[in-house]
Amino acid sequence: MTELLLNHVAGRWQAGTGQGATLRDPVKGQSLVRVDATGLDLAEAFAFSRDTGGAGLRALRYGQRARMLACVAELLQSRRDAYYDISMANAGTVRADTAVDVDGAIYTLGQYAKWGAALGDARCLADGDTVSLARDAAFQSRHVQVPTRGLALFINAFNFPAWGLWEKAAPALLSGVPVIVKPATATAWLTQAMVRDVVEAGLLPPGALSVVCGASTGLLDQLLPMDVLSFTGSAETAALIRGHAAVSRHSVRCNIEADSLNSALLMPGQGPDSAGFGLLVREVVREMTVKSGQKCTAIRRVLVPEALYGEVAQAVSAQLAGAVVGNPRNAAVTMGSLVSRAQHDAVQTGIAALGEQAELLYDGRGQALVDADPAVAACVRPVLLGTRHAQGSDLAQRVHDTEVFGPVATLVPYRDLDHGLALAHRGQGALVASLYGEHAQEMADAALELAASHGRVHVVSPEVARTHTGHGNVMPQSLHGGPGRAGGGAELGGLRALDFYHRRAAVQAAAAVASALPAG
Amino acid sequence: MTELLLNHVAGRWQAGTGQGATLRDPVKGQSLVRVDATGLDLAEAFAFSRDTGGAGLRALRYGQRARMLACVAELLQSRRDAYYDISMANAGTVRADTAVDVDGAIYTLGQYAKWGAALGDARCLADGDTVSLARDAAFQSRHVQVPTRGLALFINAFNFPAWGLWEKAAPALLSGVPVIVKPATATAWLTQAMVRDVVEAGLLPPGALSVVCGASTGLLDQLLPMDVLSFTGSAETAALIRGHAAVSRHSVRCNIEADSLNSALLMPGQGPDSAGFGLLVREVVREMTVKSGQKCTAIRRVLVPEALYGEVAQAVSAQLAGAVVGNPRNAAVTMGSLVSRAQHDAVQTGIAALGEQAELLYDGRGQALVDADPAVAACVRPVLLGTRHAQGSDLAQRVHDTEVFGPVATLVPYRDLDHGLALAHRGQGALVASLYGEHAQEMADAALELAASHGRVHVVSPEVARTHTGHGNVMPQSLHGGPGRAGGGAELGGLRALDFYHRRAAVQAAAAVASALPAG
Repeated sequence: MTELLLNHVAGRWQAGTGQGATLRDPVKGQSLVRVDATGLDLAEAFAFSRDTGGAGLRALRYGQRARMLACVAELLQSRRDAYYDISMANAGTVRADTAVDVDGAIYTLGQYAKWGAALGDARCLADGDTVSLARDAAFQSRHVQVPTRGLALFINAFNFPAWGLWEKAAPALLSGVPVIVKPATATAWLTQAMVRDVVEAGLLPPGALSVVCGASTGLLDQLLPMDVLSFTGSAETAALIRGHAAVSRHSVRCNIEADSLNSALLMPGQGPDSAGFGLLVREVVREMTVKSGQKCTAIRRVLVPEALYGEVAQAVSAQLAGAVVGNPRNAAVTMGSLVSRAQHDAVQTGIAALGEQAELLYDGRGQALVDADPAVAACVRPVLLGTRHAQGSDLAQRVHDTEVFGPVATLVPYRDLDHGLALAHRGQGALVASLYGEHAQEMADAALELAASHGRVHVVSPEVARTHTGHGNVMPQSLHGGPGRAGGGAELGGLRALDFYHRRAAVQAAAAVASALPAG
Repeated sequence: MTELLLNHVAGRWQAGTGQGATLRDPVKGQSLVRVDATGLDLAEAFAFSRDTGGAGLRALRYGQRARMLACVAELLQSRRDAYYDISMANAGTVRADTAVDVDGAIYTLGQYAKWGAALGDARCLADGDTVSLARDAAFQSRHVQVPTRGLALFINAFNFPAWGLWEKAAPALLSGVPVIVKPATATAWLTQAMVRDVVEAGLLPPGALSVVCGASTGLLDQLLPMDVLSFTGSAETAALIRGHAAVSRHSVRCNIEADSLNSALLMPGQGPDSAGFGLLVREVVREMTVKSGQKCTAIRRVLVPEALYGEVAQAVSAQLAGAVVGNPRNAAVTMGSLVSRAQHDAVQTGIAALGEQAELLYDGRGQALVDADPAVAACVRPVLLGTRHAQGSDLAQRVHDTEVFGPVATLVPYRDLDHGLALAHRGQGALVASLYGEHAQEMADAALELAASHGRVHVVSPEVARTHTGHGNVMPQSLHGGPGRAGGGAELGGLRALDFYHRRAAVQAAAAVASALPAG
């Protein structure tokens, strides 16, 4: 019987009492560990987090909590090799892909530790200026932000077991709000291992960080009005969450990140020999192959001038052919596997669905895997599709609404820039769009246009060819989230992330009372 | 047959084709006008608002739209007498109560006109500082806010047909977002009249402001991902809205204001002869009687030291006895009627429900109405209940979760300040709490404590006895909204209100591109 990972709730390590689910190596197929949350006393778990965890965190100032985050980052850094091993075994990732998750988590924690330190001894956050409500300034309105008196429940996705926890937990803990994380079962091991290390090192107050591994049954039923909920995953589950009584009746604040049809757009006038062309091709290939395309921010649609359709298809295909796919333990392999055979099958289904409205431009699926059995491994070689004509781009609705969560993208030709931007908007709200070109004002104008339906616009021009941070990399300095089908959420963006974990209130009072409020 | 009010959608005045609903004088009972939305082409209506209205508004700069609001305020001011007549006839309000609605609307418009003018020629809003993402500042992250490319649908409550429209429409229109308002049927006349006047005066671009009078059937089905939705009303309807596909599947951003068990708290140490005692009593009576208690911000729970229960009950009752209730056309009347006989009946039911867990301290219901037939008029005289003992305050759960939307409040004694504050939190999220006392630091600390579950904390001390703006008055300078059972919404708060109508995006770009973005 494989090891059963423990849950950490109510301040204790607790084993589920059911059969649980088995986590597997997605390359070799063998079982690794089991998770199970059957029989946990969730009412006790949530109350302990909310009361003991919340009180312990709120007793500290922002600066103290920031130092706590710095210690967590340091601890994770010291255990980094173990996390890389877990990631390779359970997620099938090559080292460069593990880095996006593990090192991305540590970097994000470090940034919040730095930004939080600057908040020093404050016990609430000031919000804007004091405004006079009476002619003589005797009566004033002043806004404050105070930590919410509830817990933060994270229902996380399988693709970022490390970063997905810490990019949310960093601002939550800094805000003074305790966290319960429910990682996706397929890759829960890494999340559990990190929580275990941090809890056992005693870096956080009791109850500040809990982990429930297994099914999410009953978790939402425990939420109270002052709690907050973050969900990353499918639009279907997101709809269920929004309709749940906790959200619909108790107004539990929720942050949702669902599907996203992100795009990369080559600006008009960038020919096959231009810098923009080369930068776009490189980034498209990188986005399709990093983490085998299992990033919510990955490029799914490649918008190019109609006349360049063939050249872009050829250039992307040529670079995709260089990807070495297979067992990440083999040093020659550049792209590992998807997280599970179920994802492997879902991607094949998705490619077939797109294929009914687009042509196959590059299909690596016929080629051999390195050190991996194609009947067992969840490896998928890259696939590029295309809609060939600008008219086809308009007609192929699936290209604009079907997210295939793997190394798959579609080349979408446009007539002119307005058409290209309109096609980007067809995603109905996405996390990110990127632009490739050379003319600063044109790209600034296009970026502003795309801002209406994208949480982030990433602009690549020759002078930042080496320094730009990548279309799909989520920098904690920038907003992460998008409207509409991207779920309407907002994470990161520096200290903006703290808003989600605070309650804003106006205090209307005499000048003497207003000035007796903490400065924030 | 009484006059049928027209709807204004798709740029045309359109009559419903059904029987419609009749609006009545709640004092005399006779019919006034009819409303009906049967047969409207809602798809056309929403498309026209979104496309024509949105494009027309976004073609203007903030400063131009602000001037537009100033013109609307001026027009409404010039028609003020007509609006007072409609309000008296259809809502049964005395002049002072009409002022809260009509003059409150005009004041709020004027404030947004002033604040918007300061935004000048901007075509988007800057959001925070530019941050470097590369060591040499070559690659930067900058956040912008751009107007959402959708419409704002307002499903409004019956108690503020004027202010309820304009406190939302002012920031929406200033943001460049077109509005469709669906007023509550019982008092839709005033909303319709104001929209009619503004549209006919040609003050706004075509499609910028639409009104649908009648049932809300099918309205939500028209919403698209970039639209936003505001709802003010019952928690039951709020739950239906959150579960609707527009919200649960398209992530339509929504702002909900539902029930609220607002409280007023007399600070410890304020004896019967203290300034705080007198200020509390005056404010409680004002809140119970203004608009016959039909304000979402009205005081429902009066938290006082246990030892003062009898004195407060006596003082409040004595002043309530002075209320002259009846036909607002009679100059002696100080308190008119509820908006409808249905509300009258709901309030009686609510008093009975509270009465099972609280004692009646003052019951004016036996007394005669002035110039009004008690069998017809929707007039209700004030009722004060109480839980007598601090222990009773803990046990009487209904007092903390049943909002009776009329001239009704409950006196709730507390043991000590911590207990009093805990009882205030028992509302599980409310719009506003007020504090009455004299010690600045103690009140600042208590205000900060209440900020965790209240959108606004209103602090009354002797030096602001004459200048404070009132517990229940919503000032556009301050946040209006509250967490949890208050719905989790956020309105007003000066230019903070514009956030709801904008999309925030991070633009990551070379310094040259970032600086080519509009300054905002």
